[in-house]
This record gives sequence, structure tokens and C-alpha cells, in this order.
Amino acid sequence: MTDLSLEYLFHPRSIAVAGVSGDSDGFNAGLRYLRIIADAGFKGRLHGVSPTSGEVSGFKIYSSVRDVPGEVDYVISAIPARFTPQLMTDCVAKGVKAVHFFTAGFGEIEDAGGKMLEAEILSIARNKSIRIVGPNCLGLYCPETGLSFSPQFPKQSGDFALMAQSGGNSVNCVCEASSRGLYFSKVISFGNAIDLNECDFLEYLADDLKTSVIGVYLEGARDGARFARILREATKRKPVIVLKAGSTDAGVRAAASHTGSMAGRKDMWESMLKQTGAIRVHSIGEIVDVALVFLRMSPPGGRRTLLIGPGGGASVIAADDCARAGLTLPILPAGSREKLKQIMGGTETGGGFRNPVDLYRPDLLKQAVEAACNWDEFDVLLAHLPFELYGLMPDDTKDVIRRVFIQAVLDLRESPFRPHAVVLHASTADRSRQQAMELRAKLSQAGFAVFESIGHAASAINKAMAYYEWRQRAVAGDEGGYYDD
Amino acid sequence: MTDLSLEYLFHPRSIAVAGVSGDSDGFNAGLRYLRIIADAGFKGRLHGVSPTSGEVSGFKIYSSVRDVPGEVDYVISAIPARFTPQLMTDCVAKGVKAVHFFTAGFGEIEDAGGKMLEAEILSIARNKSIRIVGPNCLGLYCPETGLSFSPQFPKQSGDFALMAQSGGNSVNCVCEASSRGLYFSKVISFGNAIDLNECDFLEYLADDLKTSVIGVYLEGARDGARFARILREATKRKPVIVLKAGSTDAGVRAAASHTGSMAGRKDMWESMLKQTGAIRVHSIGEIVDVALVFLRMSPPGGRRTLLIGPGGGASVIAADDCARAGLTLPILPAGSREKLKQIMGGTETGGGFRNPVDLYRPDLLKQAVEAACNWDEFDVLLAHLPFELYGLMPDDTKDVIRRVFIQAVLDLRESPFRPHAVVLHASTADRSRQQAMELRAKLSQAGFAVFESIGHAASAINKAMAYYEWRQRAVAGDEGGYYDD
Repeated sequence: MTDLSLEYLFHPRSIAVAGVSGDSDGFNAGLRYLRIIADAGFKGRLHGVSPTSGEVSGFKIYSSVRDVPGEVDYVISAIPARFTPQLMTDCVAKGVKAVHFFTAGFGEIEDAGGKMLEAEILSIARNKSIRIVGPNCLGLYCPETGLSFSPQFPKQSGDFALMAQSGGNSVNCVCEASSRGLYFSKVISFGNAIDLNECDFLEYLADDLKTSVIGVYLEGARDGARFARILREATKRKPVIVLKAGSTDAGVRAAASHTGSMAGRKDMWESMLKQTGAIRVHSIGEIVDVALVFLRMSPPGGRRTLLIGPGGGASVIAADDCARAGLTLPILPAGSREKLKQIMGGTETGGGFRNPVDLYRPDLLKQAVEAACNWDEFDVLLAHLPFELYGLMPDDTKDVIRRVFIQAVLDLRESPFRPHAVVLHASTADRSRQQAMELRAKLSQAGFAVFESIGHAASAINKAMAYYEWRQRAVAGDEGGYYDD
Repeated sequence: MTDLSLEYLFHPRSIAVAGVSGDSDGFNAGLRYLRIIADAGFKGRLHGVSPTSGEVSGFKIYSSVRDVPGEVDYVISAIPARFTPQLMTDCVAKGVKAVHFFTAGFGEIEDAGGKMLEAEILSIARNKSIRIVGPNCLGLYCPETGLSFSPQFPKQSGDFALMAQSGGNSVNCVCEASSRGLYFSKVISFGNAIDLNECDFLEYLADDLKTSVIGVYLEGARDGARFARILREATKRKPVIVLKAGSTDAGVRAAASHTGSMAGRKDMWESMLKQTGAIRVHSIGEIVDVALVFLRMSPPGGRRTLLIGPGGGASVIAADDCARAGLTLPILPAGSREKLKQIMGGTETGGGFRNPVDLYRPDLLKQAVEAACNWDEFDVLLAHLPFELYGLMPDDTKDVIRRVFIQAVLDLRESPFRPHAVVLHASTADRSRQQAMELRAKLSQAGFAVFESIGHAASAINKAMAYYEWRQRAVAGDEGGYYDD
């Protein structure tokens, strides 16, 4: 089967949701899907299926998939597991192309009946080439066509894609990414993956012209060997950022309970990911950190970093964080330092100007960056503003600094020395963090790569650089090349 | 000199601030100190010193320290560096006990004049046994006596102490700690440390009965050998959490510019800290994380952790994070799992109940914890609530969950199974993080150890455990024992 075969999944002409109940005041997953998809702007036909047919919240409900008028391309199942074989048989009769099982209670439960039920619906489906997404997952999000599984998801499309075995982690990732200015082409929450699995989805996304960067949350692989082959080809075309969960004994056990995954041997995964050029991360936030470097920063030519922002002690910690993450901080030449000193009013106090540059007047950011360096000597600019320092300043000074820092960063877009990344760090102290969050949102929506700590930014940049280097070797035919960050 | 000799620093009867200017609308550091100390409730006499004597903002200003009526115990210098020898001479004449130099522009600048000036004021001071705090630092915070250097600092006292070479990082740490429910006995920002240095302050704090845990931010040591000796004795009495900044080439350079510190060799520091039983951390937030374990959790008997909270995928990542940080997650016995299943309504879905426990109904937290385990099988309970999952729930459900989770955690205080730590994690998505912050603040003020990620909590608990183990060995006389987390 080819990757293109999955395109229809994201472009159904009609959808039926099975398991819509209108008689309860409580939470009904089926009705929720209908509402979310309608709100997301789905243009096709949308119906509900329930033994108690009629109408619920304006949606027409049929007692069986067979009774829905016209063709049904895509079915979402929110019914209890024990009724799924009957639903599957109805879908076969109706000529449905794909079924997404939100329904849980299959291979992930301890009871052997769960696995038997999986085998049963799979055999009915394969008989007639109906493809299955899931079970035990949230399904598809494709803003372009109005497929969605959370009311929080933006309508805006982007070029980031995510495939994830966990629905909760998918939601987390979409919210995190969109709050930081990244939007999605497609998101696939695929749970137990009894039919369509990690291989099929990765193959599809690697070919998808609307996807530039792929994020992957995986608990285990259904077909590890094929996945490794597809991954190696995929990374030659676009960055693939992988969070392989279940990489400790406790995590393996949790993964087995969660999606019935065999998480596999830790060292096996580690070397496989390195050999295939995948970028390994350890949290949902880190998936977004690394994606931001690819999607919001021009590719740095190397790791030589200019670190500039206020705070003497903050600069020392920041320098350590950069170096530990693998970046280097070359020393500013004397001439540049002299220029900086003039701009700052003739004094060099605090953390100094050697790099890191202790920019105690953030309003001078643009001037300072221009004076600080002949750009050829640096690959990356990290401009940072530590909000925790605000305790040292009167309120009106803080307001001024916030305003001028934002303006200075925005100004840099027109400068040849445009910043590659912005860090707005803050302690958890409520007030400063709230202010930092507001500024982050503003600059993120303006298209900047914004991070919440120097460490996060530096590590993401270093991992992206390692990928660029790996790809160069891989494309040049050096098949023995390892990705190593 | 003994540690007790420093007690007077924190209990001056009268303070004079040199460098108070009233004629400028802008920022005046001297006037700021006067206001902050008055607002902090200082009970002694408080005067200003400036060539233009008179009155500024209600404070009486004298043209010289010599002219201040009565004794002056403590002087804060906010005058330019070049005038400091004259000030020092005046202080000698007046019989001042200690001078804190907020003034910068000494040994930390490239100009050789800075170091000469340091030598000059030091020689005047030593002649008459005046002690110096600084220069190039923010000085002392002691809520009990009303000494302070930031208007943000709380009036409330606690049993946490901090000594830091960076003023900005001191402010950061106090704000971070107090927002998480930890308060201070003393904070010392000591900058270039030309007279009183890291050794004197650590010796004092190790003996201070009002201090239970010591945090240290250090860029370099004036007397490394003595510091190691004092550190080794101090850690036998109380935990000492050390952020040694300037531990990379770039950081070393930044430290030299910042406080004129010779940061020393990286490997030397690493082994020294391990041999002395100090707990090494890498960020200001981590100082507070580890302090919270000591000050807000009863000492765990070991690392066996019960991890409980909603979210299948979140539980898998959380389990990995715990294990990577050094904690273990023993498997819940079948009997406990059966009880859990009954409480949850007869089903085991999502991440399962084996540990981690996927508690998809946080309102059942207390019941679940009681059912989940015979407490003897576990040392630590980590209860978590991932706010990023809220995207999956309707608004009213979220509100209910927030309320019941808080109540459930509060209830646990009356239970023999009280939680050792609470984690409220959230993506950076504005809304969920704001909600997480509100809950964190509430539970922190209620006295719980609250962390912002499983990784932060697990690592802090593991480091604290390593300290408890180290101290047991050290007190037992095993001098060869290394601290190793």
C-alpha cells in the first residue's frame, strides 16, 4: 500500500458518529465529536447513529450506519467495545472507507477478551478493506477539512504534523504548539494501532506536501523493522522529532496498560533512533521547542552563539546552560566591546560585554546587536529577558522595559542581524511569570521562536543543528553516519 | 573569628545609607534602600548621608556619616566607587561595625583601578576591624529585623537561608521560594566578597538556629580549602544546596566579569561538592525544588514511589521521568488493584492501576490512595494533575475537577497516607497554565510541596534522599562516603 492511500482519511465527504446519546445530561463522547467537527467547519455531511434515532442538538440521528442516507466515508465509534463487531459489520454493508474507534477496552486491558475483540473487528474490516484508526484514541485533526477532536484546537492550518499514540498528549502538544505560534497540517491520535499503525502514518506524513516537520509520540511499534526503514527515509526529507515513551521499566509497564504497546528494549530504540536520524526528545514541550527551531528560525550555520540580555548572575547561569547544551560562546573582539561600552554610556558593569553580553538596558538591544558583532563570527543570536530581575526595578521602569524589549525584538526583523531566538524566562512567582507569558504570546504570534528558558532554547537549537549536520551526511550518501546531539 | 561574630550584622541598632539623592526624578539606589528598609519594618534609627544634607522623602540626611547623631552600626554605600575610601575613613572615625557596598566598579571590571580601590578600602577597614559586605552586591535580607533589599520581599520569616554572589539571582530565589510557600531566616547577597566571604557566611548559617536549610549561589570561592572544610561540617548539621555557576568555559568568563570570581576548575568543584555532601543543582528553581522536599515533606524512607493522577499518555511519560530521576515505581499488588477498580466503577482503562495509577477521577484521590497501598510498600506519594488534559473536558467539568482535586489533596493531610508531593503540570498554553498557577499557589500556601513537573519533583526527591543517605554515613563516621545522586 502506498502513503497516498491515506489521503482520503483526511478528506471524507461524509461522517457518521456512532454512540450519540441525547437523553443524558452528562458527558457523551459521540455528541461531543459531532459538535466539535461541526464547529471546526466540516463542510461534508455529518450524522449521528444511535439505537434511539431522531434528532439530538440539531443533528439527525439514525438507528444504524446502514440507515444513513447516501455514502458514508468515515465513521467515528464512541460506543462500548462489546457492540463494535456489529458496528463493523454495518460499516462493511454500507461501504464505509475507514472507522476510527474512540472506544477503549481492547488490547490495552488485562482481560484477554480485549485482544479477542480486536482480532474480531480487524478480521471483519480486512475482509472488505475498511481501514481502522485506533482503537482507544482520539482520531484525526485536520483544520483544513474541519476534522477535530478538541474544541480548543485552532481553525488555522500550519505545516507541523503530529502522530501520537496518546490522545491526551496530542491535545497537550497542539495546545502547547498553537500557544507558541505553530499550527498543524494534520494530527493523528492512533492509540492501539491494530490496523493503520505508526508505519502507515509516518510514510504518509513524510510524503505529505503540507507537512514540513513531523512530531511523533510513540509508546511502542507494531512493526519495528518497517518503522526504522520508513523513518530513515523520512528524515532525509524532513525533521522527525520523536518522543519514545516507555523507555524505563516503569514506563514500559505504563505503556502496556495504556495502549497495549510492547515498548521494546531501551537500548534498541536508542540506537535505532540515532541511526535513522530521528531527533529524540523527552517531553511534549521539547517536541515543540525543537519544531520551533525548524519552523521559526533560519537554519544556523553552526553553534557559535551570541547571548545577550540583562542580569549579571543570570548571564553566568545562562552561559553555563548554553555550553552544557552544546553551544559555544566565542569571545567578542575588543573593538565590538568598545562600541558596546559607548552605546551603554561608557561603563561596563555587571556581567560584562565579552559574551554573554549583560545588556542592562534592553531598549538598546538592536543597537547593541549591531555593534556587538560582525555577523560572520556568530551563527545564532539568543536574546533574553529575565523577568525575575524585575523585583529590582520600580513598577514604571518594568513597564518601560517590557515595551522597549518587545519593540527592540520586533525591530530586529528589519535588521540583517535578526535574532534567531528569544527567551523570556521567569521564576514561578505569579506576577513576573504572568508578565513573561503575555510577552511570550505576543512575540510568538509575531512569528518568533520564543522559549521559556535558556536551557530549553539552547538544547533545541543544538538538536536541530545535529539534525542539519546528519542530513548533510545522509544525503551525501554516508550511510554509516549517526545522528548525535 | 567565630561564626557568632556575624550575628550583629543582622541586628543593627542604626543604619545610615550613603548616596541618597533627592534632586533627581530618576532612580536613586540610596533612597530606594531607605524606603525598602523602612517599609520592611526596621525598628532602629535610619538616616541618609549625602553632600546635600537636609531631608528627602521624610528621611533626615546628613552630609557625612560622622555627622549622624548617636552610634551607627551599619552603613549601606550607594555612592560611586571613587568616593568609597573617604566614606570608609568616615566610618572608621564614627566607629561603624560593618559596611555593605552596593557600589559596583571594583575588582569585577577590566580596569586595574578597580582592584586597587578594593585593596584601599579593605586596608582602611581592617585597620579598625570594620567588616565589609560586598562590594557589588545587594546586601542583607532579614525579615525578623526589617533588613531588606527589594520591595517584593515578604515580611514573613522562615527557616530557609540563602547566600548568593549575585543580587539578581538572590531576588529570583526569594520570589520563587515565597511564591511556593518557603520563607527565609536570612538572605545574603555578597558579590565580590573582598572581606566577609563565602566561608564566613556559610559558617554563620550552619550555626544559625533559625536556619534549617541553606541555599548557596556561588561563582567562585575566595578560600576554596577553608570553604570545603566548613561545607563538610555544615552538611552534617543541615542540607546545603549549591548552585556552582561558572562551570563551563563560557560561564567562567561570565563569572569573572560579574563578580571578579576565579571560578576554578570544573572537575575540582564537582568532586569537592560530592565529598562534602553538598547537594548540587543547576538552576535557581532547582534550589527551591530541593529545599521544598526538606522543608515541606517528611523524610521519605526510600525511593519507592506511588504515582497517581489522570492521563494515560501523561502517566507513561511521568513514569519514565520518575525512573530517569532515580525513583522506583513498585507494582501495586493485585488486591490493591482490585480495590481501585471497584472505587473507579469497575473498569480499568487508560494507563491502568499497576503504578502509575491512572486516576481519571481526581475526586477519588483520597479513597484511591487509601485503597491503592499498604503504606509500608511505598516511601513517597506523587499526586499529579496535568492541566493540559483539560482540553478534553467541558468547562464545567474542569471547574469541578479543580475543586475536588484541591479538596482531595487537603483531605489527605488528615489521612495516614498523606501525600509527600503534589505536581500540577501544564503546557505553556496560557489558559491551562494560568489555572495551574492558581492551584499551585493555593496548595503551596497550604503547606504542600508543589512542583511544576514530575521531572522536577522526582529529581528533587532523589537528591534529598541521596543527602539523607550521605548524612547517615557521614554521621556514622564513614569519612570516605561520597554524596552521589
